[in-house]
Amino acid sequence: MKTKDTTNTLLKLRKVMASAIYTNHPLKAIIVPSSDAHQSEYLAECDLRRSFISGFTGSAGTAVITQKEAALWTDGRYFQQAEQELDTNWILMKMGLKDTPSIEDWLCSVLPEGSYVGVNPFLYSSSSWNKMKIALEKQGHRLLETTEDLVDQVWDNQPVAPATSLVTVQENVAGKTVREKLNDLRQRMIKNGVNWLVLTALDEVAWLYNMRASDIEYNPVFFAYSVVGFNSTHLFIHQNRITDEIKNHLTNDVTVHDYDSIIPFLEQNCSSEKTWLSTNSSHAIVSAIYQIYRVTTMYSPVSMTKCVKNPTEINGMTVANNRDAVALCRYFHWMDMEVPKGNVTECSAAAKSLEFRQQEDGFVSLSFATISSSGPTGSIIHYCPNKDDDKPVKADQLYLCDSGAQYRNGTTDTTRTMHFGTPSQHEKDCFTRVLKGHIALASVVFPEGAKGFWLDTLARMHLWKAGLDYRHGTGHGVGSFLNVHEGPVGCYIGNSSRVVPFAAEVDLKPGMVITDEPGYYEDGKFGIRIENALLCKKAETQHNFDGKEFYTFESLALIPIQQKMIDRSLLTEDEISWLNAYHHRCREVVGNMLKQRGYEATFEWLMKETQPF
Amino acid sequence: MKTKDTTNTLLKLRKVMASAIYTNHPLKAIIVPSSDAHQSEYLAECDLRRSFISGFTGSAGTAVITQKEAALWTDGRYFQQAEQELDTNWILMKMGLKDTPSIEDWLCSVLPEGSYVGVNPFLYSSSSWNKMKIALEKQGHRLLETTEDLVDQVWDNQPVAPATSLVTVQENVAGKTVREKLNDLRQRMIKNGVNWLVLTALDEVAWLYNMRASDIEYNPVFFAYSVVGFNSTHLFIHQNRITDEIKNHLTNDVTVHDYDSIIPFLEQNCSSEKTWLSTNSSHAIVSAIYQIYRVTTMYSPVSMTKCVKNPTEINGMTVANNRDAVALCRYFHWMDMEVPKGNVTECSAAAKSLEFRQQEDGFVSLSFATISSSGPTGSIIHYCPNKDDDKPVKADQLYLCDSGAQYRNGTTDTTRTMHFGTPSQHEKDCFTRVLKGHIALASVVFPEGAKGFWLDTLARMHLWKAGLDYRHGTGHGVGSFLNVHEGPVGCYIGNSSRVVPFAAEVDLKPGMVITDEPGYYEDGKFGIRIENALLCKKAETQHNFDGKEFYTFESLALIPIQQKMIDRSLLTEDEISWLNAYHHRCREVVGNMLKQRGYEATFEWLMKETQPF
Repeated sequence: MKTKDTTNTLLKLRKVMASAIYTNHPLKAIIVPSSDAHQSEYLAECDLRRSFISGFTGSAGTAVITQKEAALWTDGRYFQQAEQELDTNWILMKMGLKDTPSIEDWLCSVLPEGSYVGVNPFLYSSSSWNKMKIALEKQGHRLLETTEDLVDQVWDNQPVAPATSLVTVQENVAGKTVREKLNDLRQRMIKNGVNWLVLTALDEVAWLYNMRASDIEYNPVFFAYSVVGFNSTHLFIHQNRITDEIKNHLTNDVTVHDYDSIIPFLEQNCSSEKTWLSTNSSHAIVSAIYQIYRVTTMYSPVSMTKCVKNPTEINGMTVANNRDAVALCRYFHWMDMEVPKGNVTECSAAAKSLEFRQQEDGFVSLSFATISSSGPTGSIIHYCPNKDDDKPVKADQLYLCDSGAQYRNGTTDTTRTMHFGTPSQHEKDCFTRVLKGHIALASVVFPEGAKGFWLDTLARMHLWKAGLDYRHGTGHGVGSFLNVHEGPVGCYIGNSSRVVPFAAEVDLKPGMVITDEPGYYEDGKFGIRIENALLCKKAETQHNFDGKEFYTFESLALIPIQQKMIDRSLLTEDEISWLNAYHHRCREVVGNMLKQRGYEATFEWLMKETQPF
Repeated sequence: MKTKDTTNTLLKLRKVMASAIYTNHPLKAIIVPSSDAHQSEYLAECDLRRSFISGFTGSAGTAVITQKEAALWTDGRYFQQAEQELDTNWILMKMGLKDTPSIEDWLCSVLPEGSYVGVNPFLYSSSSWNKMKIALEKQGHRLLETTEDLVDQVWDNQPVAPATSLVTVQENVAGKTVREKLNDLRQRMIKNGVNWLVLTALDEVAWLYNMRASDIEYNPVFFAYSVVGFNSTHLFIHQNRITDEIKNHLTNDVTVHDYDSIIPFLEQNCSSEKTWLSTNSSHAIVSAIYQIYRVTTMYSPVSMTKCVKNPTEINGMTVANNRDAVALCRYFHWMDMEVPKGNVTECSAAAKSLEFRQQEDGFVSLSFATISSSGPTGSIIHYCPNKDDDKPVKADQLYLCDSGAQYRNGTTDTTRTMHFGTPSQHEKDCFTRVLKGHIALASVVFPEGAKGFWLDTLARMHLWKAGLDYRHGTGHGVGSFLNVHEGPVGCYIGNSSRVVPFAAEVDLKPGMVITDEPGYYEDGKFGIRIENALLCKKAETQHNFDGKEFYTFESLALIPIQQKMIDRSLLTEDEISWLNAYHHRCREVVGNMLKQRGYEATFEWLMKETQPF
């Protein structure tokens, strides 16, 4: 990671701000969120405006530039990285620490009286816009929509918007046809008393149309909006992307419009009829509908349906995870042999894991940049090895690998932490506490109506007992051949910005897939994380209090948890039973696959790694 | 519990509603909350309007009467009781069940267009008022303030308002003088930029003035308001209650006004200056201040300070709990001997426990009506034995006793569940799961910043594993010679009405006292609850992640947990260690007291009940 010199760019940007070309008033500040017009978490290159302007390349953060100051807000996963990447023009605002001001409080403390603050209305969700507007107006300032993005004006050589090939997902993978999904949605529209439904999240559009592409790295989505009426369905996408195959797939049911015509379409057709919007949609989209006709919910009905995987999708997620387990077992077996020889680097390791995955049926791409970190870099929670500053994977350090892939039938996300030499007692102690938390969440039984955040404490309590903790959520939803971070379910009780998309008040339901990923990080020393995707399913309980159903989880990822890292004296009998049962499943499922595929040596490695503890 | 015939009273009330004497319009509905002008949880006899009108005598519930219907909302603790007490004029609305409408939704579904709904503005908190107002106005209805309480108009022989003797609490019990408390408050007022602070909660006024009385049974409070300015302090109380001793105690610092002059005082002195109010204060009080001058917080600064007990108060709470333990050990020892003889009833048992408590130094009164229940009545969560329908305590049934007392230096609240014969395997299984939850909460270590509700799942998870649960919160704050239910801390993740006063987003801090009371109830069969008051204190952890302090709890109540109820095979080694350490403390502290006091037989009983498990 390198520090970026932002002095000149900031100078140019401040001139544009002062010029009042894209607003009616000179701006005293602009807010540059980490976002695109669809409020995506991961962004296409052309949308990395916050990275461009600040130099901080982490996935989450907001830059605020005034005429005098520049400040960047990010969360605990990125404190180290931001400190390294930001130059002295920038103040780092560490979210979640008690003395860190909110963006609005900080702005109000530094702005001169009666200031105008600008934001690109496509990049700010309606809810963020309203919150910021109220906070600024309370202190006598004004929030203004800019007619063009100001960062774009100072970004020479800004990449062009992507337009990758569209592919269709067949019914035997999606589990439902587009027509069935539209019928379901229209039922919900009737129930909610609306004439129109507007979809802006890219994964929601991809899910609804059973289509994928790769406009955003790791995310099999394409830039598009959709508007659903009772008698018409409208897809807004650059029209030259519609091949004959796609035209065929969409049939006459769907009218294709150009991507840029969404706002005029809404204004002409929907603005004066009851229209269902998500408060996560952009301010630009939401304000195209007259306020009294807006019916807003935090989550769109697609988001609420999509997160509950249907049986076909569950099967696909299982198959994808099993294939991924074959690749990862081959990979960790290879690491076990190669790391002690001293020739493996963080980058070469990540490349090797990709190589094994590419040999699996249905592999499409990784689902996020592989985190391959040895020793100190492991403590940077969302670290990504860098070819320009590659580091050896050392046999006397903890190695953390967080990786996942997109398969045609499902998405994976798994973390293992391993030691290829002799771990210290302290490393074992911390690993075992993380494992105890992982097991507590993976094996919990809970009543219908429970929210994901109810379970977060279970994953942390054993760390807390030793005065330890981790600065990130315990789990996020996972898409089905879609985004690896998928709302609205999750497991996080804390109050960082991550709560909003992932850990909201949505009931956990059978068919949902969330990750279970407690960790522990010691700055400059090591990082530990143990992560499996879990499928929520019905539990068979002795009783059913209040006639309620009870639910539990099944681990989708089946990859050995390294036994030499475990301090047995810290485990209860129940935890040891869980571990042995889990490893038994690894043997049964992945062992058989390895054997069938002729990977004998890896099969032997798996048997060794999964012997009863 | 008896069913009350409400036909005639409702007839009279509906006439008053239709008459428009106390509003400018005939009312189509009135709302009768379970409240007084101070938003107290427990009420004086004269304030039991909701009980009078509906017949339902439980502590929590809201009655709504329209010209045609009458409906009562209450929570899971009271479903059984309400079913027994309400006559056929009433619809029981079971809060927390998914098909139960909210009051506002139900009202809007039954009211004719453009209806007027009345509420006594002193009985509805400002926040409830605003929420209801918005909901009704959205559907074209109006919420009106009644100039007199309408239930009072049809209540023949309504009891008069109490005016019990005021007593002072000395500094060696309160830990702080009134002057010190006022100084602290004024510091907070400066920080919050206000000129005035209005206190309406009775326990806040009692705490601030180091005074107590017994206007409300079990709650050592008196009817009063207080207004604090920078240079003046105002107490609003019926002036004939101010004896020379009290006058002396208050010194010249405090100006005493008549109780009924609070609204004119606010209108004349505070309405146009920045005034700090709690949103829990009545609509009548809050609306006496012009909206732009109101600075509202959910909790008053007194409430936030009071819940953190100072060292003197902690010592007092400890002494009170120890004395209470002597009384309860004598009581349970007596029960152990007497119940098998067959002569004990629920009422005589409760009377006996009072008798033992009355022999303790500093005893003032019970802190709530003793729950003494054998077998089936134990499943009524807030059951209170009744002389007119007294029941035997049977040796072949589970016996649940939830009781507590006010001592001059502290307040107690303890529940034990015992079997005086041979418990069934099912009863033992349930008891052990409740115990595991109790231990999980009592022994948890957590970081500063954690909220009470973060810990609720710990108390439930072992019940969930068997498909069991309980329909109440896990813990509430406890006052220091004040209300046994004290906000704003608590431990409840659910979403019933109980969340608001007790389980809000307030950080747990050393010095806070909350109860730990998981339970399990089988309708018509038995109830189990194990409850101790816990003191939050600093934990000594091996590490201190992020420089944070970690906290844990210490059990204040020291009363044996019956070992014959425990299925040992369900406990972990850590849980057995906790139990043995807890019982060791019972021996050390309570055993010594019993010996010193010459209660040899009870000492022997305690030794037997606390032998290592």
